[in-house]
Amino acid sequence: MEPVKVGLLGLGTVGGGTVSVLTRNAAEIARRAGRGIEIAHAAAREYKPEAIDGIGQIGQIGDDAFAVVEDPEIQIVIELIGGYSPARELVLKAIENGKHVVTANKALIAKHGNEIFAAAQKHGVTVGFEAAVAGGIPIIKALREGLAANHIEWIAGIINGTGNFILTEMRDKGRDFADVLAEAQALGYAEADPTFDVEGIDAAHKLTILGSLAFGIPLQFDRCFTEGISKIDAQDVAYATELGYRIKHLGIARRSAGGIELRVHPTLIPERRLIANVDGVMNAVLVKGDAVGPTLYYGAGAGSLPTASAVVADLVDVVRALTTDPTNRVPHLAFQPDELADTPVLPIEEVETAYYLRLSALDKPGVMARIASILGDQGISIEAIKQKEPAEGESHVPLVMLTHRVVEGQMNQAIAQIEALDSVTEPVVRIRMETLSG
Amino acid sequence: MEPVKVGLLGLGTVGGGTVSVLTRNAAEIARRAGRGIEIAHAAAREYKPEAIDGIGQIGQIGDDAFAVVEDPEIQIVIELIGGYSPARELVLKAIENGKHVVTANKALIAKHGNEIFAAAQKHGVTVGFEAAVAGGIPIIKALREGLAANHIEWIAGIINGTGNFILTEMRDKGRDFADVLAEAQALGYAEADPTFDVEGIDAAHKLTILGSLAFGIPLQFDRCFTEGISKIDAQDVAYATELGYRIKHLGIARRSAGGIELRVHPTLIPERRLIANVDGVMNAVLVKGDAVGPTLYYGAGAGSLPTASAVVADLVDVVRALTTDPTNRVPHLAFQPDELADTPVLPIEEVETAYYLRLSALDKPGVMARIASILGDQGISIEAIKQKEPAEGESHVPLVMLTHRVVEGQMNQAIAQIEALDSVTEPVVRIRMETLSG
Repeated sequence: MEPVKVGLLGLGTVGGGTVSVLTRNAAEIARRAGRGIEIAHAAAREYKPEAIDGIGQIGQIGDDAFAVVEDPEIQIVIELIGGYSPARELVLKAIENGKHVVTANKALIAKHGNEIFAAAQKHGVTVGFEAAVAGGIPIIKALREGLAANHIEWIAGIINGTGNFILTEMRDKGRDFADVLAEAQALGYAEADPTFDVEGIDAAHKLTILGSLAFGIPLQFDRCFTEGISKIDAQDVAYATELGYRIKHLGIARRSAGGIELRVHPTLIPERRLIANVDGVMNAVLVKGDAVGPTLYYGAGAGSLPTASAVVADLVDVVRALTTDPTNRVPHLAFQPDELADTPVLPIEEVETAYYLRLSALDKPGVMARIASILGDQGISIEAIKQKEPAEGESHVPLVMLTHRVVEGQMNQAIAQIEALDSVTEPVVRIRMETLSG
Repeated sequence: MEPVKVGLLGLGTVGGGTVSVLTRNAAEIARRAGRGIEIAHAAAREYKPEAIDGIGQIGQIGDDAFAVVEDPEIQIVIELIGGYSPARELVLKAIENGKHVVTANKALIAKHGNEIFAAAQKHGVTVGFEAAVAGGIPIIKALREGLAANHIEWIAGIINGTGNFILTEMRDKGRDFADVLAEAQALGYAEADPTFDVEGIDAAHKLTILGSLAFGIPLQFDRCFTEGISKIDAQDVAYATELGYRIKHLGIARRSAGGIELRVHPTLIPERRLIANVDGVMNAVLVKGDAVGPTLYYGAGAGSLPTASAVVADLVDVVRALTTDPTNRVPHLAFQPDELADTPVLPIEEVETAYYLRLSALDKPGVMARIASILGDQGISIEAIKQKEPAEGESHVPLVMLTHRVVEGQMNQAIAQIEALDSVTEPVVRIRMETLSG
């Protein structure tokens, strides 16, 4: 059978990796897909041909991405440009032209996925986006197909490798955030502008996608709560370790009584959990289903070849299903498009979680009682307290507490009252905490 | 749309779980699959109706399994009887009648899968067997679809929960094999006859399937090397721990220069690996692909609801693809049926691995030199040696060694020569060792 002709937009890190994988594993991929896959037309503004194995296999390389999506020979378009625009216009045009699309663009899917999937449905094509979440880990497939029997209860994922590298180094070596960030930038793990990674925006894009797949709700990136790791202090990393916990930057999607929680924030988790031992740039997603219980998916969440692995897996999926009746394909968001629910995404104030608190309090009688009484009045019970020795010549002592679960709004009130105390001089440090069991 | 009518063979642990999951998650499953799924006809010799949630939802329950596979109303047959016969005859008859099949039967697939898949291809139906390996973990889907871009290098899996529970208890509590086995039997984790689990036969069934999916070879259960954990001694568990390793009962499938390795045996692995921390009855499969690198899949490998999760996921897959052209479905063994390779499965003598050796040698000058020279003559280099103190009044000392990688045939010769020494009185204990990196 004739090879399937594919168009490729972007020849950067992931684009180059995709060319390499399709070239070096061409025979094996064809044995799996039932047909060869040929990159007939690629477009890139600038690229380094010498850095791409198999570049010579590409039929035609130009600089006009729209020429690729208009090329009548092309059946599948791979979008690896990234960003919102012109990626959105290109993808929509490809769909309008009846082409299937494969993309690694998490920002695009998180923000414009509803529009894109509606267009794909209208035109009877598939949009694959396995590479948009957790790189080479087939987590989209697991949620959309492998766990299709389950009522998903929650998901907790380490879905940004840069952040996990920084937190791992901080813990292993007692280093400061800024120090490790500089090293991550030097190693190429972090961008010159690290905001997307360390402030959790990249993770929020991915979590938005995971949340929709798990709970059958439309993509709602704007409603995802996002808190970064740039304010994590070395002493909190050390106290967490002392208490038997690790701090991980988690994306958490949870179904609760009032709605769906979508939140990215630093989180204390028990060190014995498998996911607490996912270190360095690696990613992992823990999914709790009512039938299957906890399952975990681990692997490289970024990088040229791992991301290309997911891109090409989507290509194989599309090729294997090329002749399939469009209404009988796996739905983009796991649930049939007319079966999405309007369950609300909860504001963070309505989310319930446990907390790690650190405050700096005057070391005198009655202070602790006052703090405990504020917490008690807000219905917050304390699970553990550690009072540290005051530093030489200091009148304030660090006080570390772990609380039981409470609604965030209550905690906000308690913290405001604690910070209003004369005996408490610095802002209260608050890190959310999850057991990831049950 | 009308619900899809399904037939169910077997109402035991997994059959009951399947009924429960289909009942309690009926609405969510239909929102995903696009149609309801109805168990219209079930057959079981004996079962406990009061133990099965949703038993009342089944259209008709009889004791004749062949009546189900002959029922013209049934589009999909779920085989949860287990064993070779009559499961094989029932599955083949269902296929002949044009019905799709979903099964959790690892023994059946490992031994008769080639015949069954050929029949399915001939009749244009699908046989789903996700539940046959690692229970609820969607590892079949990951290998067959999620990692389809990769040249798979190796797989290492903890794929028998009973064995992992026993080894975990032995390590955590310093207990003996027999003692923990008795407890596992009391807890219901191990069968009255534990041979299938502790001697590795169950794991070999599963590994055979994983190996075919990874490397595109026909199923060859008879060629899988199998060694159980019943001879693992508490002192070896303790020495392994001292050396920074854990002993796990692994199924390993590896592509090497001469062919494919398929082997189930106790294995020392570095304690820092994530899979080394998979404890108790949990399963995990580590897959190394050339593009994606290492990925790991973790979850419950057995039990009523976790296994049902995989059975129902297969059902949803079949329902979603009911109208699909049979030649454009995901191939049963990941590779197109006419693209399977005849790469040989290597005999264990040709497999290369590192080793943990423990011998009991006379504590006198020259003995160590003699042993080292035997190993050296066979081209075996020693990575570490620990000589333990002789027990009070003993003239023999336990000598523990870790070797570099060597072909098993060479190691067999070295061990035979060492055991022939006058100064070595007991058989040499040999446990294979893998770093699971690279």
